[in-house]
Amino acid sequence: MPEIIAVGEILVDVLAETVGQSLSAPGRYLGPYPSGAPAIFVDQAARLGISAAILGAVGNDAFGCAVLGRLRRSGVDIGAVRRLDDATTGVAFATYFADGNREFLFHMKDAAPGRFRPEDVPRELFADCRAFHIMGSSLFSAPMIAAIRQGIAFAEAAGALISFDPNIRPSLLRTAGVAEEIHAIARRADLLLPSEADLAFLCPGEERETALATMLSWRASRVFLKLGAAGSCYADHTQLLAAPAFPTTEIDPTGAGDCAGATFLAGLLRDHPIAACLERANAAGALAVSRRGPMEGNSDEAMLTDFIAARKEARA
Amino acid sequence: MPEIIAVGEILVDVLAETVGQSLSAPGRYLGPYPSGAPAIFVDQAARLGISAAILGAVGNDAFGCAVLGRLRRSGVDIGAVRRLDDATTGVAFATYFADGNREFLFHMKDAAPGRFRPEDVPRELFADCRAFHIMGSSLFSAPMIAAIRQGIAFAEAAGALISFDPNIRPSLLRTAGVAEEIHAIARRADLLLPSEADLAFLCPGEERETALATMLSWRASRVFLKLGAAGSCYADHTQLLAAPAFPTTEIDPTGAGDCAGATFLAGLLRDHPIAACLERANAAGALAVSRRGPMEGNSDEAMLTDFIAARKEARA
Repeated sequence: MPEIIAVGEILVDVLAETVGQSLSAPGRYLGPYPSGAPAIFVDQAARLGISAAILGAVGNDAFGCAVLGRLRRSGVDIGAVRRLDDATTGVAFATYFADGNREFLFHMKDAAPGRFRPEDVPRELFADCRAFHIMGSSLFSAPMIAAIRQGIAFAEAAGALISFDPNIRPSLLRTAGVAEEIHAIARRADLLLPSEADLAFLCPGEERETALATMLSWRASRVFLKLGAAGSCYADHTQLLAAPAFPTTEIDPTGAGDCAGATFLAGLLRDHPIAACLERANAAGALAVSRRGPMEGNSDEAMLTDFIAARKEARA
Repeated sequence: MPEIIAVGEILVDVLAETVGQSLSAPGRYLGPYPSGAPAIFVDQAARLGISAAILGAVGNDAFGCAVLGRLRRSGVDIGAVRRLDDATTGVAFATYFADGNREFLFHMKDAAPGRFRPEDVPRELFADCRAFHIMGSSLFSAPMIAAIRQGIAFAEAAGALISFDPNIRPSLLRTAGVAEEIHAIARRADLLLPSEADLAFLCPGEERETALATMLSWRASRVFLKLGAAGSCYADHTQLLAAPAFPTTEIDPTGAGDCAGATFLAGLLRDHPIAACLERANAAGALAVSRRGPMEGNSDEAMLTDFIAARKEARA
């Protein structure tokens, strides 16, 4: 029975090969890469030896095989994934620009991911659950939002903590009710895993430390804040810790925040000291951005340990 | 006001770069190429100087821009295309195998193409319509089927002929009612544009000449049969004509049959002799397969004339 359960979009990514490539003219793409923020998250947790399961829906097609095959090889429990004959596995096309901006085109809410429903969430899967993880990017359809609420109820009954990465997608906020849902889950979560961009939405106008205090005034007892190239920091009611990023070569930033968040949560569940949780999360993020593909840079225990040791040696 | 109106899926294609490439492992793709059988058809008709319009739906996104921009530049009337903020332009992923087989993965019926409805078919567009063209591949959703029936009614009222390319997709036949709908439209059409594979479905077990006679026992007064590398043939109640294919180098067969069919219909509407209609259709097909991308090999009048003249010279 899984310790971590995540729910939401299971996708493949198709990535423009060249920086600045337009999505509206023919060009070269690379893919399909297994993706979807919750899938990246559980893949990383499973690679670190935490038993993890994912809830979501794919089509009975080549892309579904690609992503489920990958998750299975990483050790993720995919038994509760809904597989549909009459819907197609979700796809995200992405192109990156020189200024760091990204443009996406999604087949998601009307494809298989949008067909996951509350009745597809199995109560028995939550028996040993210690953390139920939710991504703000998963709040894309009414059935998925209802399924997430169902998962929260089962997780609460099991005494699991609710982990939430707001993962704000401006395009999603245009959908009625999504902004309210993000605020509601942020106020319900026990652990928050925001990026700096998410702070601007959750705590508009607040400086970083004020925002951390605001978040800790909600139900959350821990906040892990992802700062990208500036590393990460952590706050609870007694401490504020920061850890610098490891130097790395950025090839593809997509998924790095999900990977870092999963590594942080895995560290918490294994009772690592907070400083070690931050260091390991930053190392996982540095490894993640160095590979093309949203979960191609995920790492196991040995990779993390070796990476941290090598960087410390280089510094010494 | 258009002489030819087509209805159905407006898509982009994303094509595996390498023959035999699996859709379930990362690889290189090329696209987005404007596509969709009815779109390829009207693009070719418009490039030959026939006023043509298309009915269908796209998303307000980069892929919609790609395909509508292309159709507009070819002279197709896209004024009646439904553009949706809350749906994504359809996508077909395709990979080719060495034995000539193709594998597809579609985001279509649950994406923008599946959102075209009967009330989106404008009666006034049919005022000068001479041919309403339908593809069997477009019978993928109940609203689209209802829209096609609406178009047939308006075309009948305008005295236009009904042109039908059965374009049988085995995956589509699994949907309840689709096979019956194909049979019904085949029996209603005035002009049939089947491929040889379509004959096996429409007239199972019949030899080619018997099948042509069977089709002419329905309402159709003309059948244009596409034979790929073997050229094409034509039958009506008084004659049976065949024309060999032009030698060509096949790069990408997708869309060649749609392009040839549109060229044949354009010839009929311009009162070309049947032998010339066949020759021009075969030339358009040969040009179509020589370019990668489903409508990248479409041709205008000068290209057709030059190609035919050059091949005749080479033969002499």
